[in-house]
Amino acid sequence: MSTKTAGLIIIGDEILSGRTLDKNTQTIATRLSEIGIQLRQVQIIPDVIDTIIETVKHFSPAYDYVFTTGGIGPTHDDKTAEAIAKAFHVDLVKHPDAYATLVDHYEGEENLNEGRIKMTMIPNGATLIDNPVSAAPGFKIQNVHVMAGVPNIMKGMLDNVIPTLEGGEIIKTRSIIVHKKESEIAALLQKTQEDYPQVDIGSYPRYVEGRHEVSIVIRGADEGLIESIEKRIRDKTN
Amino acid sequence: MSTKTAGLIIIGDEILSGRTLDKNTQTIATRLSEIGIQLRQVQIIPDVIDTIIETVKHFSPAYDYVFTTGGIGPTHDDKTAEAIAKAFHVDLVKHPDAYATLVDHYEGEENLNEGRIKMTMIPNGATLIDNPVSAAPGFKIQNVHVMAGVPNIMKGMLDNVIPTLEGGEIIKTRSIIVHKKESEIAALLQKTQEDYPQVDIGSYPRYVEGRHEVSIVIRGADEGLIESIEKRIRDKTN
Repeated sequence: MSTKTAGLIIIGDEILSGRTLDKNTQTIATRLSEIGIQLRQVQIIPDVIDTIIETVKHFSPAYDYVFTTGGIGPTHDDKTAEAIAKAFHVDLVKHPDAYATLVDHYEGEENLNEGRIKMTMIPNGATLIDNPVSAAPGFKIQNVHVMAGVPNIMKGMLDNVIPTLEGGEIIKTRSIIVHKKESEIAALLQKTQEDYPQVDIGSYPRYVEGRHEVSIVIRGADEGLIESIEKRIRDKTN
Repeated sequence: MSTKTAGLIIIGDEILSGRTLDKNTQTIATRLSEIGIQLRQVQIIPDVIDTIIETVKHFSPAYDYVFTTGGIGPTHDDKTAEAIAKAFHVDLVKHPDAYATLVDHYEGEENLNEGRIKMTMIPNGATLIDNPVSAAPGFKIQNVHVMAGVPNIMKGMLDNVIPTLEGGEIIKTRSIIVHKKESEIAALLQKTQEDYPQVDIGSYPRYVEGRHEVSIVIRGADEGLIESIEKRIRDKTN
């Protein structure tokens, strides 16, 4: 089974100014890992049309799947749909299903002001991603999945996207917590990694309540092998 | 006063797998904003030497300042120092001050095992960034500041880096919370943005305890202008 790859583009001045902590990366990375899609790169970029276009053009051919979050709301600073249309050289058109959804959600066409109509304008040829939280949809064009930036809305859209993706080889993971300084176990980990190049061994130190600990993470496709490496490391660090 | 720019490279498989939530971006973005340095882009990349080299080579000429976090610990999966040395075509050499610091910290040269010695290997010509938390230093080469990934260690290093940077024009910010749907105020915000192109107006919706609210953020260099725009928006949304 082959490896599937993904790239993620986080669009939003509010992340780059420090105002908002990005939580979407972790959510998307976790959900993709579960179905065997490896997130290879994330770029956090501002709400600038040319930057969005350039980044999408770079990502789309580089990964099996591309995801974006942010910039599809009703206000003037939401520029993602326009940028994606330009990146794929298509027009932004009023999507009949998106329009019908918003007429229904806002209880009548007379309540669709300019900002709400903006959220029905989708790049020509894109398919919609349902938004179970606040109605205004995301969309998919070629391999690019365009989702909201607000975390709970993004999660709702992601729930609808995940089943449409073809997963790859699922990476199994085992974690071991060792109460030592990382520099005390570095040689053991290096030797183990050299002995077993089929797996990836990661080492993540923390300092918790006055005590050093290291989380050792073993990743790979062969669960039996991972278990035997786990046992080896446990035996040598006890 | 000119605008100063920065790019940030977050290095770590653990962020891309979803295991770890990246908090360093927000910390660095906030501290840079305070001294008038605009964070323009963040890339999150894996612990892969060629990827680190390529990203650093792309970022270094593009921004006034570049920052990296992650990958400078004692274990085999810490590859940042080697990659940075290669990116700048210099050797990785044992830095005498880093070595002396670690001998002191680990109470004797006899306690410097291979992993600890690794943390004294710094690209030739780089200057050290003191680590007040766990001794092993970061470093600066040309405009690239290489820091730890563990958030409290990164913060300690950043405290030492910030005073060495030349700041730019400080962007002032005012926030207004409006208890409306974003689509109800989109037209007002668009008109206000058109009337005052000197500022940036951002609109960030949330749904809190069953109630819609929008945080409107006005950013710019002229505090008096920002205040008058804030008053105008408050008057029209009350």
